[in-house]
Amino acid sequence: MTAAATSARPRHLLDFQDWSPERLTAILDNADTMLQVLDRPVKKVPALQGLTICTAFFENSTRTRTSFELAARRMSADVMTFAAGASSVSKGESLRDTIEVLTQYKVDAYIVRHHASGAAHLVHQYSGKPVINAGDGRRAHPTQALLDAYTVRQEYGSLEGKTVAILGDVRHSRVARSNAELLPKLGAKVILCGPATLLPADLGALPGVTLTTDPVQAVRGAHAVMALRLQQERMTGGYLGSLQEYADTYQVNEALMGHAESGAIVLHPGPMNRDVEISAEAADGPRSRILKQVENGQAIRMSVLYHLLVGRD
Amino acid sequence: MTAAATSARPRHLLDFQDWSPERLTAILDNADTMLQVLDRPVKKVPALQGLTICTAFFENSTRTRTSFELAARRMSADVMTFAAGASSVSKGESLRDTIEVLTQYKVDAYIVRHHASGAAHLVHQYSGKPVINAGDGRRAHPTQALLDAYTVRQEYGSLEGKTVAILGDVRHSRVARSNAELLPKLGAKVILCGPATLLPADLGALPGVTLTTDPVQAVRGAHAVMALRLQQERMTGGYLGSLQEYADTYQVNEALMGHAESGAIVLHPGPMNRDVEISAEAADGPRSRILKQVENGQAIRMSVLYHLLVGRD
Amino acid sequence: MTAAATSARPRHLLDFQDWSPERLTAILDNADTMLQVLDRPVKKVPALQGLTICTAFFENSTRTRTSFELAARRMSADVMTFAAGASSVSKGESLRDTIEVLTQYKVDAYIVRHHASGAAHLVHQYSGKPVINAGDGRRAHPTQALLDAYTVRQEYGSLEGKTVAILGDVRHSRVARSNAELLPKLGAKVILCGPATLLPADLGALPGVTLTTDPVQAVRGAHAVMALRLQQERMTGGYLGSLQEYADTYQVNEALMGHAESGAIVLHPGPMNRDVEISAEAADGPRSRILKQVENGQAIRMSVLYHLLVGRD
Repeated sequence: MTAAATSARPRHLLDFQDWSPERLTAILDNADTMLQVLDRPVKKVPALQGLTICTAFFENSTRTRTSFELAARRMSADVMTFAAGASSVSKGESLRDTIEVLTQYKVDAYIVRHHASGAAHLVHQYSGKPVINAGDGRRAHPTQALLDAYTVRQEYGSLEGKTVAILGDVRHSRVARSNAELLPKLGAKVILCGPATLLPADLGALPGVTLTTDPVQAVRGAHAVMALRLQQERMTGGYLGSLQEYADTYQVNEALMGHAESGAIVLHPGPMNRDVEISAEAADGPRSRILKQVENGQAIRMSVLYHLLVGRD
Repeated sequence: MTAAATSARPRHLLDFQDWSPERLTAILDNADTMLQVLDRPVKKVPALQGLTICTAFFENSTRTRTSFELAARRMSADVMTFAAGASSVSKGESLRDTIEVLTQYKVDAYIVRHHASGAAHLVHQYSGKPVINAGDGRRAHPTQALLDAYTVRQEYGSLEGKTVAILGDVRHSRVARSNAELLPKLGAKVILCGPATLLPADLGALPGVTLTTDPVQAVRGAHAVMALRLQQERMTGGYLGSLQEYADTYQVNEALMGHAESGAIVLHPGPMNRDVEISAEAADGPRSRILKQVENGQAIRMSVLYHLLVGRD
Repeated sequence: MTAAATSARPRHLLDFQDWSPERLTAILDNADTMLQVLDRPVKKVPALQGLTICTAFFENSTRTRTSFELAARRMSADVMTFAAGASSVSKGESLRDTIEVLTQYKVDAYIVRHHASGAAHLVHQYSGKPVINAGDGRRAHPTQALLDAYTVRQEYGSLEGKTVAILGDVRHSRVARSNAELLPKLGAKVILCGPATLLPADLGALPGVTLTTDPVQAVRGAHAVMALRLQQERMTGGYLGSLQEYADTYQVNEALMGHAESGAIVLHPGPMNRDVEISAEAADGPRSRILKQVENGQAIRMSVLYHLLVGRD
């Protein structure tokens, strides 16, 4: 019997498939409380005291791992860092064996990043423990989408009737995919925009999601404009001509933002390639909420941990 | 004056030479309590609050290190991870200098893994602090043997009159050596089995230990059968013909287990090479206590830390 | 507005420029209390509970990082280890972006090591948070100088009228530079000694500092003699002839110490090249305070953290 089976609601955050708008809103509401904790001199609550959270990162990401580990420690949990590179996994141990061993160590929850889509789901299946997906392949990065949603809500009070444009390499972006799943559940519209080679048709079939290759059309009426990080290695895959060509058309900059709503904000999941997918001016200007996103990430991750591990229905 | 000199009993666990059956039994008994702690929602006791435990691993082993660090944190100790690869040791600093520096940081105990036999003993000598040997060369890995003993005792209530067969590369195995030293002290018999090239004669001289090259003879009457991990690199040393040849004769599988006692259990120190030294069926079947061993490892390591750092005679 | 601006005194320790002798003496006095804490069975005080200290090491130094992290944990702070090598920095993220992101995680203070002189100052500027410089380029390593000063004071009761000779590669040593800035503020004289190619003239212009290429003249009348670590890579820069030639003239050994004050002590910032810049005999003999320096480093780092984060004027 898995942990999921013991509860009316899923004790994991793999993607947003099984998540109702009510539960999602509860996460965002609770993040308000967590932000207040982060504003206090002593930024710590005892909510997860005595629990052990394992960050199992099979793909390196210091920034995301650090953000989760800090969030867990601020809830007073013990953190166990499992760096796959340094472990038996590199000796050929299977994901299943690794997770079964970690579970015998009495880990209370997992935060998983993996290059393969679906890996977080497998960890949940093998362990029967709450799992937070911190990015699996191109599929999902749900806490990033939650912090994006939270940042937009913070600006406008609600996501209802708001439009979020997301520009860049949509095809390879778990951030874009998770936002496309999440935002419409909270009442927002999503416009995904990029070169035709980087726009997967299946996402256009989601409710509330529109695809376009035209950046001006994408940002027209948008309340928030997100630039996706351009992975340099995509250049070699034949998806793009040149960085310059890409930047000329799809860069989020002041000129493009002139077509958006007057108070529209600029988002980026980081780390940025300044003057490639986003101009330095837009990144550092008054519309930018990029550092706010990072701050909100702490609050959202604390809120998700609380919701999965101690919250009640 | 070393810590050892301040106490009637040794404040270290290097091997089992100076350990009486009574003290060993106390460790196993106390592990029962620790297992209960691990079953509670809050898996933490304040026993080592304010103490700093240093894991000094001069040989990489994420699994063993993690297990010790979790055990220490669950006793409320602070953990200092000293990864030799990233340190002054790689600049040519001697073991002595390294340990003397760490000791000046006021470390309260060391958990040491090193490729050289006797290294843990040197750390104890240089530091005067309690030391747990987490594997030194081919010599000893005492907490692994304790968790093996504990797992057998858990099954049968006692080790008195039980037989444990250990199959594989006995020569290069500190696990085999530590079990050969420990189990007879607790009243069990040990049969060590492997190809003649991998069976060191000196172990056969230990009380309660028998050597054989015949796996069927080894497991006959055994209450527990342990497969040792086959280090692939041994193949090049001329010790073995081929993996297949090895597996054909010495693999722990259902066929071989048919010769053991009817309720005999299967053990493995992990990580496993499935279908080499152990069949997948035996590893995952009802006789397997391999995941139980991992769980018991937490309890045993907590018990050893308690015994060395706060226990009284 | 930066943290520095909110307080009458700087909330950072970058170098000793703005530090009065009174504040420096307060740090040393408080280290006495910290040493007492380190002598207790429970080596922990709650002073920094709920605060998060980030060690941002852009240059590897396990020893220094470990010393700071232990000090922070003994003050009950949470520690966030930011290892630059494993992070976005290696993907080309700028120092500014990195620090701005970390600051959004609500880090309360930074401990920074960086290969570029002035980096710690930039971290303070970008974050507005208290920063301790743990070594930036050739410029400064203030906590090392403080622990050196503390070790001399421990021996003689005061630094007033004492002479400290520092021998070796002065040019490339942030330790030498920081001591040259600190010790005269506390009433001591500093003699810097090394081959002419390794003696930067600007240091000789500091009050209380003298340069010489003659080791006997350097140690004459000295109450403490410090050997600097000889970086092997300097050999290729044309600064030195051979290791042997260097050792013949500048090695701190019993013969050279015969010219110092009768009770003079031997210091080294570690790790040592025994029988290069210091003889094994001098390193391990009765004059050596090298292990004492390591112990004092814990106390000094705890004292600096306390002073910057909770102390009052």
